[in-house]
Amino acid sequence: MKDAVPEYIPTYDDVLAAHERIRPHIHRTPVLTSSYLNGLTGAELFFKCENFQKAGAFKVRGASNAVFGLSDEMAEKGVATHSSGNHALSLSYAAGRRGIPCHVVMPRTAPQAKKDAVKGYGGIITECEPSTSSREAVFAEVQAATGAEFVHPYNDPRVIAGQGTCSREFMEQVTDMTGGPVDMMVAPIGGGGMISGTCLTLSNIAPDVQIIASEPEQADDAARSFKAGHIIADDAPDTVADGLKVPLKELTWHFVRNHVTDILTASEEEIIDAMKLTWQRMKIVMEPSCAVPLATILKNKDRFAGKRVGVIITGGNVDLDRLPWIKS
Amino acid sequence: MKDAVPEYIPTYDDVLAAHERIRPHIHRTPVLTSSYLNGLTGAELFFKCENFQKAGAFKVRGASNAVFGLSDEMAEKGVATHSSGNHALSLSYAAGRRGIPCHVVMPRTAPQAKKDAVKGYGGIITECEPSTSSREAVFAEVQAATGAEFVHPYNDPRVIAGQGTCSREFMEQVTDMTGGPVDMMVAPIGGGGMISGTCLTLSNIAPDVQIIASEPEQADDAARSFKAGHIIADDAPDTVADGLKVPLKELTWHFVRNHVTDILTASEEEIIDAMKLTWQRMKIVMEPSCAVPLATILKNKDRFAGKRVGVIITGGNVDLDRLPWIKS
Repeated sequence: MKDAVPEYIPTYDDVLAAHERIRPHIHRTPVLTSSYLNGLTGAELFFKCENFQKAGAFKVRGASNAVFGLSDEMAEKGVATHSSGNHALSLSYAAGRRGIPCHVVMPRTAPQAKKDAVKGYGGIITECEPSTSSREAVFAEVQAATGAEFVHPYNDPRVIAGQGTCSREFMEQVTDMTGGPVDMMVAPIGGGGMISGTCLTLSNIAPDVQIIASEPEQADDAARSFKAGHIIADDAPDTVADGLKVPLKELTWHFVRNHVTDILTASEEEIIDAMKLTWQRMKIVMEPSCAVPLATILKNKDRFAGKRVGVIITGGNVDLDRLPWIKS
Repeated sequence: MKDAVPEYIPTYDDVLAAHERIRPHIHRTPVLTSSYLNGLTGAELFFKCENFQKAGAFKVRGASNAVFGLSDEMAEKGVATHSSGNHALSLSYAAGRRGIPCHVVMPRTAPQAKKDAVKGYGGIITECEPSTSSREAVFAEVQAATGAEFVHPYNDPRVIAGQGTCSREFMEQVTDMTGGPVDMMVAPIGGGGMISGTCLTLSNIAPDVQIIASEPEQADDAARSFKAGHIIADDAPDTVADGLKVPLKELTWHFVRNHVTDILTASEEEIIDAMKLTWQRMKIVMEPSCAVPLATILKNKDRFAGKRVGVIITGGNVDLDRLPWIKS
């Protein structure tokens, strides 16, 4: 089977336009360093802290770009998605800032905390049964009834252009801090939205920077796709890094295939250890997904030693009652 | 019984000298804001994040000032203390930066994690029995054998001048960010080192700023001292805010008595709720002690509403295996 071809591939001009559009609605998140983690890895690490971003994750960049790029006529009908994670929060936040409705289709079995979080940002939830067929049917009904614009969590040029603003900010910040760029950039990969935005920006403004994607061993569909040369989707991957379970789609695959240097993987234990270590040493709350880059750096020290390495901390929306290193 | 009179009261010139002395050894920690917490409290809050400080707490300011202020001759013999908390870590860190020994007397029953942390920063531990008499006897032996300079965790002019650099930085930062100062400054109070440094600085550079100290109800010796007009020490206070169990001493009492506007208290439950809320919303790891200010602000909203309020997040050295909202 041949992979689908993307309809429109966003350009760096789209990233620049996105940045102007979303600037009033996002934080310019800080870049933090840790002399302890530098000592441990032998690399010079620069952490772009999107866990401090509005709505708690980088996803607000792409979601805001989609929402604020709509014509008034389209915007009036609102936006819709069927994510139940950070994309739903971010899209609800962005829609709220524009004063338009955001419809979120979620399984009725989703945790109450996730439903409450979406409602807290103003999202309107329609429940479906916990099956793909029900989700698709209910989503189609919602769209037909409202005319709301579907915003995919990652396979959408508007979303990828928005995520591309993160590396643009980062490169400015690290140059301000240290006088020069990094040698490598590491980010987690799930559906590939952040990695695609990173590829889009860096291939234009810093084409020598290596782009490394990090993935859980137990959800290594992107690593296997990268090796095979075509998209392989996992059936029902299970990992503590729950933001990274989704598969690549044609648009993100385009960027991965053309611009990613390598995809490294880490075990569940390595991810949890790296997560706890970051909380302990950097004093930041971040999701398990964000620990995958550090876990792969610690596992492949030779590759990173002596290098200047950017690491994207993608989000901070964690259930504080269930931390993966505490057995309940 | 009359309270002891301090031998030397540090001046704002001592704070300025301390700042020059310690600048190479500390972080200028960031000031963070949270629109969610502003909405919840009705105040405009500015959090000075000393949890991101070297060695994980503001205490490194005072400890570094003491260590780097020693003559070469004194420094050669090293420094000593009998804290087992952040002061011991900070003094070990600062002594390590100067390349001199730091002796720490700790009960043999102290948690292994605390011993490991002190050793991790290069501190030399001498164990004592878990009693005041043993601690004093062992400490006297260590001092006699080494000639090391005793640095008290808070009742020391060098330490208080060092802590005073925190508010100085904060006032510069908040003015850069917003064009003006705050109306009030809130910090937790245990022995009173941070509050005394805050009083020393603000009474000189911004005497109109109200200084509020926050304390656990279950360790409210400072609040009762403030009311009574003389130092009252609790016998064995028990609180989740374990950094705040120690009593005021003559030097910190001097500053509290003369410059603190009020001392507010919060219950254990209020402290834990405020701690979890801050982790959730600000995505930062901080100690229970740091949550006492927010707990008292939430409890006394009328007093803070409409005001610009600085809050000092004092440290981030938490046992991540035992979080107070998770029952084990």
